[in-house]
Amino acid sequence: MKDLPNELVLDRELDAPRAAIWRCWSEPALLEQWFCPKPWHVTDAVLDLRPGGEFSTTMHGPNGEEFPNTGVFLELVPGERLVFTDAFAPGWIPSGKPFMAAHVTFEDAGDGKTRYVARALHWTAEARQEHEAMGFHPGWNAAADQLESLAKTL
Amino acid sequence: MKDLPNELVLDRELDAPRAAIWRCWSEPALLEQWFCPKPWHVTDAVLDLRPGGEFSTTMHGPNGEEFPNTGVFLELVPGERLVFTDAFAPGWIPSGKPFMAAHVTFEDAGDGKTRYVARALHWTAEARQEHEAMGFHPGWNAAADQLESLAKTL
Repeated sequence: MKDLPNELVLDRELDAPRAAIWRCWSEPALLEQWFCPKPWHVTDAVLDLRPGGEFSTTMHGPNGEEFPNTGVFLELVPGERLVFTDAFAPGWIPSGKPFMAAHVTFEDAGDGKTRYVARALHWTAEARQEHEAMGFHPGWNAAADQLESLAKTL
Repeated sequence: MKDLPNELVLDRELDAPRAAIWRCWSEPALLEQWFCPKPWHVTDAVLDLRPGGEFSTTMHGPNGEEFPNTGVFLELVPGERLVFTDAFAPGWIPSGKPFMAAHVTFEDAGDGKTRYVARALHWTAEARQEHEAMGFHPGWNAAADQLESLAKTL
């Protein structure tokens, strides 16, 4: 995939098999364990794994902060690829201020490892900058560390 | 479907069978004949009838105006329902300034007629107002007249 406008990319090799990484992305009880960098955590994960299906979580901060996020899946290829966005609520209802579409891919990298690429694509250069300033790179990297650790236990 | 925020609605009974109305919406050579109120017209219709598939047209005005539009289908139930948006280009690439998602439904209304409901849902109240001021109601009604006339010939 060539570079796209207004994108931020995390591209890493994780030391866990693709099937385990996929489970961590697709099972709510697993997703809640890694999706937010500690000391934040996620509850109430809903993953309706079909195009247009709900993908929502509530993020909790160490000081009682609480941020519900609602979006939908746009595309799913089990074990290989998922795409989701916050631009719609379930039922294809335009929602909030469209911020990003995330394209996440999983590829076998040999020796039980997985190439894990997560792209955040934004509608505007401003949204991309805002996301980078909010800590896209450290945040998504820390979450990927948690993902890798959890997947290794499966 | 209850009223939704930031929506504009066209709700009409058309004097043509549902299958014919669906053909006019799903076959490029037919869509080009009715989709834009005359004296405007549409060329280069692309209808890739699957979730994420391209839905694009080029609109031409009587003074040589030319407006390409690119979007994607979000959901399709042949003969019953289609949903599309300009918020994405094919490949789920965030595109332009997200303006609307259109939800179009077709229901048998007896005697070979069809209840035709087209909802334009917007991300903001401003976009809804802009769309109304651009002539949503007269424009979509005139196009629906053309759709009905064409479908009756099929």
